[in-house]
Amino acid sequence: MADTNQTTPSRVTSRHPYPLMRVGIIGGGQLAKMLALEASKLGFSIAVLDPAPDAPAGRLAERQVTGGYFDAAKLQELVEGCQVTTYDIEHIDASEMRRLELAGHTIHPSPGILEIIQDKLHQKLVFEQAGLPVPRFARMDKPDLALMETFGFPLVQKARRGGYDGKGVFVLRNAEEAKQAFAGESMLESMVEIDKELAVMVACGAGGEVRCYPVVEMLFDNRSNLLDLLLAPARITPEQTARAQDLAVQAARAFEGLRGVFGVEMFLTKSGEILINEVAPRPHNSGHYTIEACVTSQYEQHLRAISGLPLGSTELLVPAVMINLLGAPNANGRPCIVGLDEAMAIEGATIHIYGKEQVRPMRKMGHAVIVDQDVERALAKAEKLKAVLKIIGSEDV
Amino acid sequence: MADTNQTTPSRVTSRHPYPLMRVGIIGGGQLAKMLALEASKLGFSIAVLDPAPDAPAGRLAERQVTGGYFDAAKLQELVEGCQVTTYDIEHIDASEMRRLELAGHTIHPSPGILEIIQDKLHQKLVFEQAGLPVPRFARMDKPDLALMETFGFPLVQKARRGGYDGKGVFVLRNAEEAKQAFAGESMLESMVEIDKELAVMVACGAGGEVRCYPVVEMLFDNRSNLLDLLLAPARITPEQTARAQDLAVQAARAFEGLRGVFGVEMFLTKSGEILINEVAPRPHNSGHYTIEACVTSQYEQHLRAISGLPLGSTELLVPAVMINLLGAPNANGRPCIVGLDEAMAIEGATIHIYGKEQVRPMRKMGHAVIVDQDVERALAKAEKLKAVLKIIGSEDV
Repeated sequence: MADTNQTTPSRVTSRHPYPLMRVGIIGGGQLAKMLALEASKLGFSIAVLDPAPDAPAGRLAERQVTGGYFDAAKLQELVEGCQVTTYDIEHIDASEMRRLELAGHTIHPSPGILEIIQDKLHQKLVFEQAGLPVPRFARMDKPDLALMETFGFPLVQKARRGGYDGKGVFVLRNAEEAKQAFAGESMLESMVEIDKELAVMVACGAGGEVRCYPVVEMLFDNRSNLLDLLLAPARITPEQTARAQDLAVQAARAFEGLRGVFGVEMFLTKSGEILINEVAPRPHNSGHYTIEACVTSQYEQHLRAISGLPLGSTELLVPAVMINLLGAPNANGRPCIVGLDEAMAIEGATIHIYGKEQVRPMRKMGHAVIVDQDVERALAKAEKLKAVLKIIGSEDV
Repeated sequence: MADTNQTTPSRVTSRHPYPLMRVGIIGGGQLAKMLALEASKLGFSIAVLDPAPDAPAGRLAERQVTGGYFDAAKLQELVEGCQVTTYDIEHIDASEMRRLELAGHTIHPSPGILEIIQDKLHQKLVFEQAGLPVPRFARMDKPDLALMETFGFPLVQKARRGGYDGKGVFVLRNAEEAKQAFAGESMLESMVEIDKELAVMVACGAGGEVRCYPVVEMLFDNRSNLLDLLLAPARITPEQTARAQDLAVQAARAFEGLRGVFGVEMFLTKSGEILINEVAPRPHNSGHYTIEACVTSQYEQHLRAISGLPLGSTELLVPAVMINLLGAPNANGRPCIVGLDEAMAIEGATIHIYGKEQVRPMRKMGHAVIVDQDVERALAKAEKLKAVLKIIGSEDV
């Protein structure tokens, strides 16, 4: 006879003891800092590995391990005591991370995926294999003029490993310039006639859940190759938006088992094609705007994704423009912010200052997001903000 | 002859050395924690005074002073080294704070204003003097049946000092109940026939700048007297909205020299009048929703206001409902969150867990905000979230 006082729950209700999650982050820069702020909101505790004892995220962490990203003992020290470990940079010891994963530690995105993404050629091969559109490319193990001539000038040479923010990318217009080619392992890419550079953040959660953020438009500084200005949403057609989001989701799905947020940079060519440029397996500079403009920021989303919680809404609540706040051309020493009052008086502006102790020319010291119901007006305000706010140093020359 | 290479700036440009501001906070609870998170975003550094060494805000602070809010030496230790000091609770030593202010320390809101607000009778006298509508009231130094009978039953007796979250508020319906009146210094208020309870956050910056947030509607739990559910915007007419915002700004302006955000609670009576109930000189539970739903959160706004920066936009980007996450009726020991997955799966929900180490029945352990383009749908989602998420303890009886 059934005991009617007992009910069998139709499903198990989640129970999270406290703190809800202990998350390790390799890298303690601005991305880790913004992850740490969202982690604190959620009642998660954070441990950080960074070579700098005063890293921006370190101050918010319950525990900082001071050490290098290729120091096996320090990596092990970090992951022990964390329920899940993630990273805010790609240039870390992926094979050691893979060993730690095999030893039973949870690491997201998986080190196996990181290893592929660390190599720009391998990234491209994955996308090619998945049938996704990429610029025409070729492998070049060492400078080879014949190979380059066959590939066709002008071309873009990219170092396979270690590049970021435009570093390790070289435009070679002819055989003469090719003499200056980068000497290491590289890949060649055809020069694409770019109409716009686009980016999409995709979030991959537990059980195959995928959520896609809006398509954004990126404008780069020609001199520094750094992201100069970002508009959300991109000023493209609804069909182009749908296509870019579809490609971004397919790009993320090309990496089986991926968990976390995933940044996909794309080219919209002058002929109207969308090609995948490269991807980042982590929160991304092109997703900063989600803090102010979307229901769930990329940082909270990353924490949800890697800890197995349901993903949050990626809805854009308001158009936004983001600019990086870089160290002034001669900046050196302790940072000093000039024009902060004027910048903060701009309606809809939010300023983020990362807390880096030293400023250097073009170093990313912070960013600003301007929200406005009209994206063109947001753009004008961002240009104004860029003109009034400068980050100089105490020892400028 | 003029040197044409030199331009005379038409105004002085602000220069902020680094960190941009050192802010002291008396109290290290959830309001201080959310201030600290915004401070970190802005590159401000925080020092906290709290009796608990593991206070939620303490972990985010550069420096925590562990001590009581009436400990003169500890208050002095906090304010020294801070460019501006503020507080997340009213029940602190205002006369000591006034002494520190006279000694040259910057404290916002000013301790003189805090002293008035600490006394509910004095608050009301300020509003009465400013010609602002308040419920009829009278002073009662000790229980006095004749005074109460003259005032008229039913009435509300309020302890003049030390009450919060409905504590220190007593409804006395008749002479019989009046025998149980609170014995200390109190005030009497007429029972208002309440249609809705409203609240408005007002921000007062440097140079008389004032910004007003949307009007919100508060629903209270009858049992605990705690804020149970908050809707932004309030479901009232545009005329009522304008009236409530106007009163809130006037209430803030009734305190000369006020700097910081200022919470104004109001009654919308059944006859359509709006009366000021009481005020809080700090970020307020009724303003939590601003983090997700407004361009500038009340926390960033408070930091802008007290540090002399321009105020930010108070625009509501999306309707929102906020609920407090309270310890379950039998909760005791270390907290454990039940139903977190189900809660976070609700579209538009953001969960804040404060990080308090111990749970107690009805203790504020966190809050949730649900944003939705439709406020009624947000309300339904909030009810669902309340039903699925429970905070229990490791030693529950």
